[in-house]
Amino acid sequence: MIHTNFTPGPSQLYFTVSDHARQAFKEGIPSISHRSKQFEQISKETTDGLRQLLSIPDNFYIFFTSSATEVWERIIQNLVAEKSFHLINGSFSKRFHEIAIQLNKKAEKLEAKEGEGFTGEISVQDNTELIAVTHNETSTGVVLPIEFINQFKEKNKQALVVVDVVSSMPYPQFDFSKIDSVFFSVQKGFGLPAGLGVWIVNQHCIEKAEALLKKGISIGSYHNIPTLVANAAKNQTPETPNVLGIYLLNKIIQDFLRKGIDTIRRETDYKAAILYHALEQHALLSPFVKDKNAQSKTVIVADCQNHTEKLTKFLLEKGLQPGDGYGSSKKTQLRFANFPAHSKEQYELLVDSLAAFQG
Amino acid sequence: MIHTNFTPGPSQLYFTVSDHARQAFKEGIPSISHRSKQFEQISKETTDGLRQLLSIPDNFYIFFTSSATEVWERIIQNLVAEKSFHLINGSFSKRFHEIAIQLNKKAEKLEAKEGEGFTGEISVQDNTELIAVTHNETSTGVVLPIEFINQFKEKNKQALVVVDVVSSMPYPQFDFSKIDSVFFSVQKGFGLPAGLGVWIVNQHCIEKAEALLKKGISIGSYHNIPTLVANAAKNQTPETPNVLGIYLLNKIIQDFLRKGIDTIRRETDYKAAILYHALEQHALLSPFVKDKNAQSKTVIVADCQNHTEKLTKFLLEKGLQPGDGYGSSKKTQLRFANFPAHSKEQYELLVDSLAAFQG
Repeated sequence: MIHTNFTPGPSQLYFTVSDHARQAFKEGIPSISHRSKQFEQISKETTDGLRQLLSIPDNFYIFFTSSATEVWERIIQNLVAEKSFHLINGSFSKRFHEIAIQLNKKAEKLEAKEGEGFTGEISVQDNTELIAVTHNETSTGVVLPIEFINQFKEKNKQALVVVDVVSSMPYPQFDFSKIDSVFFSVQKGFGLPAGLGVWIVNQHCIEKAEALLKKGISIGSYHNIPTLVANAAKNQTPETPNVLGIYLLNKIIQDFLRKGIDTIRRETDYKAAILYHALEQHALLSPFVKDKNAQSKTVIVADCQNHTEKLTKFLLEKGLQPGDGYGSSKKTQLRFANFPAHSKEQYELLVDSLAAFQG
Repeated sequence: MIHTNFTPGPSQLYFTVSDHARQAFKEGIPSISHRSKQFEQISKETTDGLRQLLSIPDNFYIFFTSSATEVWERIIQNLVAEKSFHLINGSFSKRFHEIAIQLNKKAEKLEAKEGEGFTGEISVQDNTELIAVTHNETSTGVVLPIEFINQFKEKNKQALVVVDVVSSMPYPQFDFSKIDSVFFSVQKGFGLPAGLGVWIVNQHCIEKAEALLKKGISIGSYHNIPTLVANAAKNQTPETPNVLGIYLLNKIIQDFLRKGIDTIRRETDYKAAILYHALEQHALLSPFVKDKNAQSKTVIVADCQNHTEKLTKFLLEKGLQPGDGYGSSKKTQLRFANFPAHSKEQYELLVDSLAAFQG
C-alpha cells in the first residue's frame, strides 16, 4: 500500500483534494455552464487567490490552459516571429526548444552539462525575441537561482523573458519586474489531478502577440493571447474548460493561503535540507546535483547507481513511492518531489528510511 | 433545487459519474503516472470500449485532446495546407470556419439559413483539401442526415471529410468508410465533467499530416498527428493528460456498453419523439427547426418567443433546468439536451410540465 507518492508529477495529492472533489459533485459543479455567473465567480476567486499567494502584480493576466506542455506551444506561437533563445539544462527545457523548432522558428540554445545549471553572465543575440528559461528542471533536479534569471531583462530590453516554473511553484518568489511570463501545471506543486495549466503574462506579451497578428503571422486561434485576454476580462475561458479542475485549484489555493506561503516555503526548505543532508551522509547514495546553488528544493534527485532497484523496493515496502530517474537515468537515479502535499512527517520517515538502507 | 439539467453541455452528469469519481480517488488514480502500465491499461480500455460502442473500424486511431475546440485547431493545422470548405449551419460550424481563417487558410464556406440544414448535392471545388461538416449544431438544433454527409467522400477523393459530432455522439452510427475523422467532447453525450476531447482519425489523415510536414509546413508540436499516433501506439499521450477524465470516460463507456448502444439509441428516439410532439401540440410553443429531417434528436430547440422567461421560471420551479437559446436567440428560444444522462422518466416529466404550461 502506497502511503506517500514522491514521484514529481502527477504526484501526491494535497490531503484536502478528495474532500473538495466530493463537495464539487455534491454542489453539481461539473454540470455548471462555463458561461454562468457561478463559473465566473469560481474563476475570479482562483485568479485572485493565486495573485495573492504568489504576489503577482495587477499588470499580469492569468490564463487557464490544458497543460504546461500546451503553454510551451502557445508561447512560441504568440511571442516569437523568428527567433527564440533557450537555456537547456535537462529534458524539459530541451523539449521547449524542440517545440520552437517544430513551429518553424530559429531557436538558438545554450546547453548546460547534465546535472549542472548556469552561472555568470549569459550573452544573448540582439535580435532575440524571447528568452526561455526553465527555473526547475524536473528531469535532473537542477534549479536556476532567481538572481541568475533576473539578469536577462535589463540587458535584453527587446526580448521577453519567460520562465517555466512547472515543478517549482508555489515555492519560488519571483521579481515580476524582471520577467514577462511564467507557467505551470497543477499536478505538481499544487497537489491536484492533472489536466490544467496556468499561464501568466504581462502587457508586453499581449503587445507582442498583437504585433505578430498585425503582421499577418498566425498566433493560433481559441488560445491566442488576445482571445485569452478578452475572455479572462470576463473571468471566462474561450473553450469549455476543465471546470472541476479550476474549482479544485481554487480550493487548494485557499488552503495554501490559510496555511500561509511563508510556512509552505519554510517547510519546503526544511524538508529539502534533511533530504540533501541524508544523501550527503549516506555511504551508498549521494545528491546527483553537486553544486549547492543548483540543487532544487522541490525536485531532489538521488544518485543511487546500482542500488537503485533495491532501494526502490526497500522504500515501496515502507509505503514510500520514489520517482524513477528520468529517461536514461532510470536505472541509476531516484527523484523525490518536495511539494506542499508532502508533509514534514512524511519527509522525516523518508529520511529515516534512507538512513536505514544498507544496500 | 435542480433535479435535471437539460443545458446542452456541460449538461446533466450520467448518474454513475460521482460514484466513479469517488472510486477514482479511493484508488489513487489522480496520482498515477501517465507513463505507468496502469495508465496505459486505462487508456487502452477506453479506446477499445469506444471502438466497440461506436463500431469504429481498426484503421482509425483514437486520440485524447483537451476539448473539441482544440480539435478544430488541430484539424486545420494538420490537414490543410491551403484550402478548406465549411458547411455552416449555426454558431459552432461558423467558429470552425473562423479558426481556419485565423490559421491563415483559404477557408471557403456555404451557409444555411438559420434553423435550416442542407439538402441535395453540394459541389465542392477541386482543390479543396478538407470538407468540414457539423453533424449536429448545438446552437440551433439542426442535424444533417448521415446520408447527406456520405455524399462527399465519393465525389471528392482528394479531400478529407471531417465531422463535428460534439453534441450528437454516441447517438449516430456513422459509415466510417465515408468519413475520415470525427471528434467530440465528453461533457455532452457522455455526461461527464468537461476537460477532455476525443479525436478519431484514419490513415488518410495521418498521411496528409506527414505530407504537410515534409513540405515544411508546421503542423504544431505536441499534438500534431504523428506525435499523437506515436503515443497512442503505446496507449499514452504526449503531455500529462486529464487522467481522471480518461478514467471516468472509460467507466461511462463500460456503463453504456452494459446498457447497450441499441437501447441508448432507442431511448433517444423515444425522448425526442415525445418532446417534438409536445412542442408541435402546444398552443404557445413550437419546434424551432421546422424540417423534420433537420430536427436534431440530441439537442431540441423550442421556439418560445415572449414566453421564454416565464417558461424558464415555470420549469425551474419543477427542478427542470432548460438551456438558454444560443446567442441572439437567448430571449426567444430554449434548448433541451437529449443525452443518455437524461432518463425517459425525466423526459416524461419535462413533457408533462410543458403541456401544463399555459403562459
